Amino acid sequence: MPSPLAHNAGMSPALERLNCHYQMMPPVKAMRLRVAAFDGERLCLHAPLACHVNDKGCAFGGSLGSLMTLAAWGLVSLRLEAEDLAAEVYVADTQVRYLAPLYADLEAEAQLAEPQAWTGFVQTLRSRGRARLQLAACIRLPEGGAAAECSARYVAIARRA
Amino acid sequence: MPSPLAHNAGMSPALERLNCHYQMMPPVKAMRLRVAAFDGERLCLHAPLACHVNDKGCAFGGSLGSLMTLAAWGLVSLRLEAEDLAAEVYVADTQVRYLAPLYADLEAEAQLAEPQAWTGFVQTLRSRGRARLQLAACIRLPEGGAAAECSARYVAIARRA
Repeated sequence: MPSPLAHNAGMSPALERLNCHYQMMPPVKAMRLRVAAFDGERLCLHAPLACHVNDKGCAFGGSLGSLMTLAAWGLVSLRLEAEDLAAEVYVADTQVRYLAPLYADLEAEAQLAEPQAWTGFVQTLRSRGRARLQLAACIRLPEGGAAAECSARYVAIARRA
Repeated sequence: MPSPLAHNAGMSPALERLNCHYQMMPPVKAMRLRVAAFDGERLCLHAPLACHVNDKGCAFGGSLGSLMTLAAWGLVSLRLEAEDLAAEVYVADTQVRYLAPLYADLEAEAQLAEPQAWTGFVQTLRSRGRARLQLAACIRLPEGGAAAECSARYVAIARRA
């Protein structure tokens, strides 16, 4: 993944809005996360290990789950904003697999489970005011591979103008 | 559920140790949770909504997931301690369903998915030094029913004496 700092330096207004949105939620502010990178398809979030360490000196499983949930939620929100669609986005269900302990800062990456599903999702949301989308997220290990993987379904409900 | 205060007033040394264990983890301390009740089969944790509120004024999904994960982890830890078994307990995977928004304090309740599985779990842990167990947890709605449900698999690894 490219340097998060390089990406932050040139953060777009949409990413700055997302960052502010995260910080407005008390439990998310306490996680000390920040938007690290976004390439239009994948959103990466970063959080310091010191805030998320468990009794074994590695990252707390609940923190990994929360960061992946937030990355996927942020990705859907960013892409809907880019479509000029005003909607509330909710997580409906998540499946998380914990694969390896993480002894470094948390780097979550979210993307669509099936990129081609986006067009149908947007069409359904426009026509019916409500649509569902499957997301995939993971927490990267510094040595390669994943500390945790997440599959999650999100529901978007259009806001009435 | 009976009053958490009534239960806290007479909290056993094992529950006090669990509470201290939770508070030693920075991300868990930030959740301001406390052990609310334990009847030998079910462990209940409580956390104030103000710490866990999202952008919609209800509880953040990641917080619900974390509290259920901690309740199930705590239940396994307490029951292993009661068996005089020293083991590290890890979450292996979780499935969470978000059913309804929660506009009140968070009350998580964890129990074994199959109560009769406990004996085999303990036997396997004693003989092989490692065993798996399926847990069920939920977040209660004040009006009845659940805001979220969780099914999770935990792994216990015996500590060498």
